[in-house]
Amino acid sequence: MENFVIQAQIIYSASPTELAVIPSGFAVCMGGKSAGVFERLPEAYASLPLLDFSDSILIPGLTDLHVHAPQYTFRSLGMDLELLPWLETYAFPEETRFSDLSYAQDSYEHFVQALTKSSSCRACIFATAHTEASILLCKELEKSGLHTFAGRVNMDRSAPEGLKEKNAAFSLKETERWISLMQQEGLTRTRAILTPRFIPSCSDELLQGLGELAVSEGLFVQSHLSENEAECALVKRLCPEATNYADAYARFNLFGGEGRKAIMAHCVLCPPDEEALLKERGVYVAHCPQSNTNLASGIAPIRRYLDAGIRIGLGSDVAGGAHLSIFRAMTDAIAVSKLYHRLIQPESSPLSFAEAFYLATAGGGSFFGQVGSFEAGYEFDALVLNEGDTLPSPRRFSLRERLERMVYHLEDRAVTAKFVGGRRLF
Amino acid sequence: MENFVIQAQIIYSASPTELAVIPSGFAVCMGGKSAGVFERLPEAYASLPLLDFSDSILIPGLTDLHVHAPQYTFRSLGMDLELLPWLETYAFPEETRFSDLSYAQDSYEHFVQALTKSSSCRACIFATAHTEASILLCKELEKSGLHTFAGRVNMDRSAPEGLKEKNAAFSLKETERWISLMQQEGLTRTRAILTPRFIPSCSDELLQGLGELAVSEGLFVQSHLSENEAECALVKRLCPEATNYADAYARFNLFGGEGRKAIMAHCVLCPPDEEALLKERGVYVAHCPQSNTNLASGIAPIRRYLDAGIRIGLGSDVAGGAHLSIFRAMTDAIAVSKLYHRLIQPESSPLSFAEAFYLATAGGGSFFGQVGSFEAGYEFDALVLNEGDTLPSPRRFSLRERLERMVYHLEDRAVTAKFVGGRRLF
Repeated sequence: MENFVIQAQIIYSASPTELAVIPSGFAVCMGGKSAGVFERLPEAYASLPLLDFSDSILIPGLTDLHVHAPQYTFRSLGMDLELLPWLETYAFPEETRFSDLSYAQDSYEHFVQALTKSSSCRACIFATAHTEASILLCKELEKSGLHTFAGRVNMDRSAPEGLKEKNAAFSLKETERWISLMQQEGLTRTRAILTPRFIPSCSDELLQGLGELAVSEGLFVQSHLSENEAECALVKRLCPEATNYADAYARFNLFGGEGRKAIMAHCVLCPPDEEALLKERGVYVAHCPQSNTNLASGIAPIRRYLDAGIRIGLGSDVAGGAHLSIFRAMTDAIAVSKLYHRLIQPESSPLSFAEAFYLATAGGGSFFGQVGSFEAGYEFDALVLNEGDTLPSPRRFSLRERLERMVYHLEDRAVTAKFVGGRRLF
Repeated sequence: MENFVIQAQIIYSASPTELAVIPSGFAVCMGGKSAGVFERLPEAYASLPLLDFSDSILIPGLTDLHVHAPQYTFRSLGMDLELLPWLETYAFPEETRFSDLSYAQDSYEHFVQALTKSSSCRACIFATAHTEASILLCKELEKSGLHTFAGRVNMDRSAPEGLKEKNAAFSLKETERWISLMQQEGLTRTRAILTPRFIPSCSDELLQGLGELAVSEGLFVQSHLSENEAECALVKRLCPEATNYADAYARFNLFGGEGRKAIMAHCVLCPPDEEALLKERGVYVAHCPQSNTNLASGIAPIRRYLDAGIRIGLGSDVAGGAHLSIFRAMTDAIAVSKLYHRLIQPESSPLSFAEAFYLATAGGGSFFGQVGSFEAGYEFDALVLNEGDTLPSPRRFSLRERLERMVYHLEDRAVTAKFVGGRRLF
């Protein structure tokens, strides 16, 4: 059923800084896209099936711009470690296990079930460097009804044995094989995205080949940028010929531009020339506030990026972030923006709730096209939120306050129904 | 029933930096106190009733060293505001309503129900300046079975009309009346604690009178200290004769010492001489990491305080903190310690999970005496934790990892049974 009407209390972003709040309205889905939100249902839609969620709040679906699927099953462990011991104790040993297809199937099923139940309707996902396991993940994602970009990871240097690929040629050949397997599977909701892990784990030869693939196939790219100090110093040593970390991608055509979108996770420590390149190429920043806190990376200057007109969405970065919920990423983004204002740059005003909501919906959603709003023409991604009897109070709350309470206290447990591209997942 | 044995998987603090982990053990409660933890049950206890929680984890109860009861029902609202607009929009108008006893009853019932269900077995609680409403709160707390200190708030200056008390004499008289009402009620688990809101809202005359009361009645004290910059500057202007903010309490006998315990919430910006006084007087720091983040106060130097041997526990500071859970306070404390290490003091090592667990249990618990451990002689406060089928995974987890997962993902929803002073609350 892709033509229907939902009656509900409706909230979405009227602009990057303002919420549209409709205490009683109708959201119309026609052919999987929004036909708009109405306070009175127009005659033209009067005969469509009506879903009555009038006691609930309807918001656009959220997008997770950065998440590591194989790390889901150990999320929240070792959050008191720093980046390197955490990678060595948890992330790398776990990813090594994905050469075992039965383990991969089991683990990815857990991840996809959790993502399906979550507040995210769309996600940009890292798999591992294992081609077959990555295909398993994509098939699970396709079945779920979620819309995603998923990437087989490339890493041919500076990685532990068992994870590091033989060489650049092997990594490229396997990437091409993975893309053609994706095509054979005929996946429509799950799209391939090139995923060089990050500069330190990719040789120039590999990056060169991936850039050629990006150009020839028009593929999008996801990776990491300027996450922490040691990493930035390493990139400087590894790539003396690049003008900065971003350029180490850009000189191989892996940094957006010419219609090829790219997401760079973190961007905590970008110098001004990298910021300029993010802006110029329309590259997306995946802001992962919890991961940047947990791994002691720092706080990304999101207010400055917003002022500069850089594209931004939110990422859970599971398992650097312990929580898969993009509602949690919203509240973490507000929280760290307060500390940024206090500790780093007093003139940098903190994020408002409305701004965090925009980043979680239309901000990140736009990587997928017209996604993250109920304006006419947007893909119909929607969440029905209801607190049930879980948040008793003697007070009366405004609609916006009711949303704030669910976002802070229930997070993804508030989601009672979910629609992606007009299809109801539950 | 105050004599019983619990069979479970048991975790408690072996020291401030180490967990004692007993995969299969027996915790013995005799007369409301712990008789110790045993891997094999000693013959002497073999005939006691046995509660079988062998599929669950048993940990000591947690203590919330700082929470505002009247603010509970609006927690999580306006977390994108700064301190002053937040106080004016939410905190002050809400507290004004507690002159209405029926509203107070309703609101405090919600708070006490939530605290009862939470992971906190003990708490140090601010009420408002309304004597009758404060008594209502104390009676609700007494019924709950929790062990608490609760304080009628004193504020005779710099507060909005409707909250500010007439004058110091009135505030003192009402405080004495409240204490005698507490005595008339014969409360045993709910103890009165002197609660000057903070220096800016208390005149010297009021502080003088409260100090005399503290000395004559041997009462403990709770208040706020060095939370944010504007407040510290204001205290400097208001109290030119005090050598520092702490001294503004100390010179009136409101800063611990001589067996009179005191808790100071926040301590984000204490200069060295205040730190020295905290240490010298054995004053407790209530570390409220979420509130300090939400209200853009900063990050308290907890590693430095620990190294200095200052007493520390955790506080939710609802509603400056949005979450009542001290499990959440643990993970927030670890998180902000990472940012402190990254952004303020690289040599300051982040808190470990074991350290945060200690602060939440024995650290804050010691304000109540021997509380927060299963060592023999401690009050028997205990939580039974079980994830049920909420955290499925193909991995096997160690006992400590299982605890980490519940703390991060389920927070207080992991608590399936709760004991305070040997009495089972649910």
